Amino acid sequence: MPRVPVPPEVVAVLAKPYLAVVATVRPDGSPHTAATWYEWADGRVLLNMADTRRRLEHMRVEPRAALTVLSDGDTYDHVSLLGRIVSIEPDPWLLDIDRLARRYTGEPFGTRDQQRFSAWLEPERWHAWPLVS
Amino acid sequence: MPRVPVPPEVVAVLAKPYLAVVATVRPDGSPHTAATWYEWADGRVLLNMADTRRRLEHMRVEPRAALTVLSDGDTYDHVSLLGRIVSIEPDPWLLDIDRLARRYTGEPFGTRDQQRFSAWLEPERWHAWPLVS
Repeated sequence: MPRVPVPPEVVAVLAKPYLAVVATVRPDGSPHTAATWYEWADGRVLLNMADTRRRLEHMRVEPRAALTVLSDGDTYDHVSLLGRIVSIEPDPWLLDIDRLARRYTGEPFGTRDQQRFSAWLEPERWHAWPLVS
Repeated sequence: MPRVPVPPEVVAVLAKPYLAVVATVRPDGSPHTAATWYEWADGRVLLNMADTRRRLEHMRVEPRAALTVLSDGDTYDHVSLLGRIVSIEPDPWLLDIDRLARRYTGEPFGTRDQQRFSAWLEPERWHAWPLVS
């Protein structure tokens, strides 16, 4: 599996608002997955979660995480990034979730009464593949 | 996170040919994700991989796995299953990958010269959610 940096053709896929799935590891060592919005920025990936999300606890204990972007017929059928969460910060003014919501929906985020956190995933390795191989 | 069985409205989502992401755990304890076809059958999930896929090795060492189905605007935006791989068997006549290929493309699988394996994921817990929560 190649190490970073990811090549330009993979960055081009990541730059689009495709849906993604983030995997974290639970305290018992088993994997956990959830659908997520994301944004690629300067070699890292922004994720944002309500403070009630389990994966936020998982990331605090075990920062290693993986993300697969389903690009649905673009250059690659999917792009996956394996790396670690290097930062978890509160998003008290909902700036980051608004940034993600605008990227995916064109509008600010609808729910305004949540406590939310931003996490940055720094990839170490990547793979990009046709869907079935 | 609710335990199985999954309710009928979740089964209805799983029955459709949505794309999914499967997460396994690498020998170093970090998560690995990849896009996958799947089929829900009698409370378990069929996955199929070429024998060169890393996640096949991961599953043999650590059977706990997770799957997120991106349902893109169906009843739920995504359905996730956490469980374990209960069976890994060769697919020498490509019957299972043909079954998956027909489900997703309407045609048998194009590549006929691979050694492939089928893995069955038995879910223990599930979650189904709007995309951002």
